[in-house]
Amino acid sequence: MYEKFAQIALLYDFYGNLLTQKQQEILILYYEDNLSLGEIGEEFSISRQAVYDNLKRGEKILVGYEAKLGLVKKFEANKVALLEIADICREVKTSRELNKMDIIIDKVTQMIE
Amino acid sequence: MYEKFAQIALLYDFYGNLLTQKQQEILILYYEDNLSLGEIGEEFSISRQAVYDNLKRGEKILVGYEAKLGLVKKFEANKVALLEIADICREVKTSRELNKMDIIIDKVTQMIE
Repeated sequence: MYEKFAQIALLYDFYGNLLTQKQQEILILYYEDNLSLGEIGEEFSISRQAVYDNLKRGEKILVGYEAKLGLVKKFEANKVALLEIADICREVKTSRELNKMDIIIDKVTQMIE
Repeated sequence: MYEKFAQIALLYDFYGNLLTQKQQEILILYYEDNLSLGEIGEEFSISRQAVYDNLKRGEKILVGYEAKLGLVKKFEANKVALLEIADICREVKTSRELNKMDIIIDKVTQMIE
């Protein structure tokens, strides 16, 4: 459950601006402010079902953009590479194995390409 | 002129999949294969003007997505930071100033956030 929230939140960070104002507001209230469907419905004077439909529609749009563009996937891969770079830096600081700088340079070069 | 080509090509790399098949093909022929409007027109059996309109429409869509999402801008900023990291690595290899590892770790942390 937490993972689904995190995934939608990440997709929202990338593609949220492509949703309608209302979809954006509903997703924020649900995923960021953790309001219930009923509470959000009251806010907008719409039914619980209408909130649910808006949420699902918004999520589907976000997932659709990611399926087409794959930018979150790329971002996550870069994040893994960056964490590895930070680890290597900490390692080199203690081990003083300066030849490991080349591993970082290679990783950086790959990320830029 | 070259800069405009490079900018559109970069936008295309990020958002090209959001264009129609025809727009994608026309942009590729023009920006990647360097065909003229007339040549592309022959390929599709449409007028030079129709090719031009398709190009402009496609470019406008790409620019519009970037205006909303700003992901190319973020990517370019990350690229600058990565080039700086590579430079610092090369520097440390010769200067052996291991305390500079902390600069890299800071940069990496900022990029992940």
